[in-house]
Amino acid sequence: MTIETDIGQVEFPAYGDYESDCPARLAVDIFGNSWLTVIVYTLRDGPLRPVELRRAIGGISQKMLTQTLRRMERMGLLERRRYAEAPPRVEYALTPAGIDLLTPIFALGAWADTHGDAVRAALYGDPGD
Amino acid sequence: MTIETDIGQVEFPAYGDYESDCPARLAVDIFGNSWLTVIVYTLRDGPLRPVELRRAIGGISQKMLTQTLRRMERMGLLERRRYAEAPPRVEYALTPAGIDLLTPIFALGAWADTHGDAVRAALYGDPGD
Repeated sequence: MTIETDIGQVEFPAYGDYESDCPARLAVDIFGNSWLTVIVYTLRDGPLRPVELRRAIGGISQKMLTQTLRRMERMGLLERRRYAEAPPRVEYALTPAGIDLLTPIFALGAWADTHGDAVRAALYGDPGD
Repeated sequence: MTIETDIGQVEFPAYGDYESDCPARLAVDIFGNSWLTVIVYTLRDGPLRPVELRRAIGGISQKMLTQTLRRMERMGLLERRRYAEAPPRVEYALTPAGIDLLTPIFALGAWADTHGDAVRAALYGDPGD
């Protein structure tokens, strides 16, 4: 199926019924956690230490960061690397599954570039920045 | 920036700092509402009446459907069309902004096709269906 969108003509693969038990539903559940998405995006250029992650993201509590990192590691999106230095150094890196999540994340970003101001204005009466 | 992913080589536009106040953050907020995403997907082939939407989606309460449709209409993702018939007929259709949301939604679907089983297995100990 080819659909004409504001950001070009897009070829969509034919999926089964998303509505019942399609894999896309899992993806939606994943994106329901905003911090997860922000963390994947923040690690796009390579591994970071927890303190660097927290500084880059801004506005995330230590507790929320730790919880989200643990869940993402369990999901196989992140790899925790511990280096036996003194003091020990810990870094988080995207796995291949985590790297592949960058594709829909950037597609969301492109959508927001095109429509974000209008949606914000409609929701909050704010023309955007 | 070009990134090699399991679903091909992807060219990413250069964005500003997502971490602070980038439009992508709004998109993440939008995808935080799973029903919104499911509704956009379900309307991909054209307008539907509320009863048809509810049947196609499955597992959504009337109250949740109504609330989500109202919010999406306010956001400018949906258009409510009321036909002066007896009884009056109401349909919901995607606006151009809603249609463009199909692009990231299908990117999520492609990701889930590739990685969904592994993530499900990691999270729930279930090899998928």
